[in-house]
Amino acid sequence: MTHSEKHRANSFDSHDKLARLRNEFHIPSNTIYLDGNSLGLLSHRVQERVTQTLQHEWGNDVITSWNKHNWINLPITVGDKIGRLIGAPEGHTVCCDSTSINLFKVLNAALQINAGRTEVLSTEDNFPTDLYMVQGLQQMLGDRCTLRLVPEAELLHSISSDTAVVLATEVNFRTGRRLNLAKLSEQARKQGALTIIDLAHSAGAMPVELHKHDIDFAVGCTYKYLNAGPGAPAFLYVAQRHLEKHSKPLQPLFGWLGHAEPFAFSVDYAPAQGIRQFITGTPPILALAALDAALDIFEGADMADVRAKSIGLSEYWLERMAAEEVLAKMPSISPAEPKERGSQLAFEHENAFAICQALIAKGVIADFRAPKYLRIGFSPLYNTYTEVEQAVAALADIVHNRHYEREEFQQRSAVT
Amino acid sequence: MTHSEKHRANSFDSHDKLARLRNEFHIPSNTIYLDGNSLGLLSHRVQERVTQTLQHEWGNDVITSWNKHNWINLPITVGDKIGRLIGAPEGHTVCCDSTSINLFKVLNAALQINAGRTEVLSTEDNFPTDLYMVQGLQQMLGDRCTLRLVPEAELLHSISSDTAVVLATEVNFRTGRRLNLAKLSEQARKQGALTIIDLAHSAGAMPVELHKHDIDFAVGCTYKYLNAGPGAPAFLYVAQRHLEKHSKPLQPLFGWLGHAEPFAFSVDYAPAQGIRQFITGTPPILALAALDAALDIFEGADMADVRAKSIGLSEYWLERMAAEEVLAKMPSISPAEPKERGSQLAFEHENAFAICQALIAKGVIADFRAPKYLRIGFSPLYNTYTEVEQAVAALADIVHNRHYEREEFQQRSAVT
Repeated sequence: MTHSEKHRANSFDSHDKLARLRNEFHIPSNTIYLDGNSLGLLSHRVQERVTQTLQHEWGNDVITSWNKHNWINLPITVGDKIGRLIGAPEGHTVCCDSTSINLFKVLNAALQINAGRTEVLSTEDNFPTDLYMVQGLQQMLGDRCTLRLVPEAELLHSISSDTAVVLATEVNFRTGRRLNLAKLSEQARKQGALTIIDLAHSAGAMPVELHKHDIDFAVGCTYKYLNAGPGAPAFLYVAQRHLEKHSKPLQPLFGWLGHAEPFAFSVDYAPAQGIRQFITGTPPILALAALDAALDIFEGADMADVRAKSIGLSEYWLERMAAEEVLAKMPSISPAEPKERGSQLAFEHENAFAICQALIAKGVIADFRAPKYLRIGFSPLYNTYTEVEQAVAALADIVHNRHYEREEFQQRSAVT
Repeated sequence: MTHSEKHRANSFDSHDKLARLRNEFHIPSNTIYLDGNSLGLLSHRVQERVTQTLQHEWGNDVITSWNKHNWINLPITVGDKIGRLIGAPEGHTVCCDSTSINLFKVLNAALQINAGRTEVLSTEDNFPTDLYMVQGLQQMLGDRCTLRLVPEAELLHSISSDTAVVLATEVNFRTGRRLNLAKLSEQARKQGALTIIDLAHSAGAMPVELHKHDIDFAVGCTYKYLNAGPGAPAFLYVAQRHLEKHSKPLQPLFGWLGHAEPFAFSVDYAPAQGIRQFITGTPPILALAALDAALDIFEGADMADVRAKSIGLSEYWLERMAAEEVLAKMPSISPAEPKERGSQLAFEHENAFAICQALIAKGVIADFRAPKYLRIGFSPLYNTYTEVEQAVAALADIVHNRHYEREEFQQRSAVT
């Protein structure tokens, strides 16, 4: 790394509209954190809010907090805050359970609404849990649910009049390829198919326009770009047209807090109006409070600026890699065109696992995805151009000096 | 209340083997908290552990904590800690999702194992969400799942050779009546039926012997007597015989963390060995850490002592009420025999709602259950005999002076 390059990165940072937001976060010391697409960083707001919820709400007000601090409505109020980041009108997003469980709910809803069709169409390299949930549903529904997998590039043209629902993740977890939701939705609509979009790698990283693109259902995760903490609750979106009266409940996980009158304790289930019927059990309050605070940081960020910085950081990364001859043997598997990407890049290398470990040993946290990809995530709220410059220099050093051949970097552990 | 009665309560407290455990908890000021059967109190350990998990684990070590702090195994390690309180051998209990979601999993497992039978037999006044989950399952499975409800007193004799699974809550959420699990299990076994027991009001309040009583499945909640916080994750128990090889996965919520190799990211679901296959999505780490710390308090408590104190407090409550003539019009709907009760009492009164509000206004936190019951929960880890004595005096005062007729106590809010 040259002095002038350092200066250049510095200059980018000084012109960064979002630069002040980095102060919101607890930045681990001596660390360049490029794994926000796996687990976002802790913020001071989250820390304060959790402490407040523990001590003041749970600790002092205990059970009365369900009303006094509006715990009971957190799934909805927090859902609406997420809704503002994903182009959802108020009352269409709820925050509860895990992405997998929420996917199970909307898959059921979609198959029920599009009765007569059985095909769930998805991509071969969709995030596995999304496919597993369909397979689980098949175990229950038998031939009322079929799963058809196609290569991502063929998805659009594979939608047919047999397709009940297209299940797609907007940004591919390995390659970072971003689907064109507008076209996908249009094509699905033409064929009479519904859409379920997994926003795990989109929400908080780029503008999403669910309502505008006429998406039917969406699910997503809050512990990546939304920085809500490990295993934070997921969200679920349902388009208005599906929230109107139906002859039977839309989703089968009939929990008491999705009941029209949860405290009437009646024997028979009757779904609540609107999005609330998608709630199942008692809401996880500590986690929802953390998420609520994490979302407040986005009030200081225009999503167009977030997207612009995400592209800026990724393009700068690619430029720096191109300048390092030794890195030529690590081709990107992400699209070259920025608008076709999410907020991550992935590179192929036979030794990607060990390279990732060597990076971590140098304080650069990236991640490895099987079988041979190094994945670099850019979180526009806290990452800097200077970090990019330093991280690429570290990577070049590792590859140039073959540090990855050291035995200590070969051992695989439970989570990689 | 007489001076000598105060003295008597004091003397009970001074002989209480568990008295020191009250110091573990954050006792809200000027409050007698008798609602631990709805939401247990915050403990200092939980507060410290959550702070530690936030700052040190998530904040500093971020993604590496999945290995470094063994986050990935928390559902199992915490599950085993709960297992020790409910008579489960190691490796049979897992902590994840909500009670409702976990019930959905084990209901599916039971119907699958007992294929050929369709009847889920339960009680009319089981906790509603348990019945709703069966109704949701019926919506999916059609005539492969039928729900038969009988009065609680007839449950034992209603188990027949048609029954696939008996779904029962050990302690009734309204009356506090405790079922005889030994007899229930024996009768189910005789008829070839499986058992699913909801331990929401049992775990942490009394000894439970799942393995000894040969129970097939159990689910339960950790925010009541286990004091893990509002909406804390639930648990799930599966008997050894059901964890052995099956031709297909035992439960249909196929999440990536229940996969045999979650990080292989293969397209096809293959269940993990043992209890781990009951995990679905990414574990909620903050909430699991809180629960883990809350469970440590039980290491200082023999469950036989917990039970003895629970009975002691309840019997003292009944004795004090009997001594107050004005309370004769509030009959108990709980069994008179202590061994037939859980750790709560419930009383009937036309004005139970307003009486409960008046109690809360006096700093005595109890709860109301529709249509007309005042519910008093005893948490042996932190409640005292002195609290019982004072709370009954407050209740007598409210009823004697008809405070409950005040308008301020009539208004119902979202959660009661």
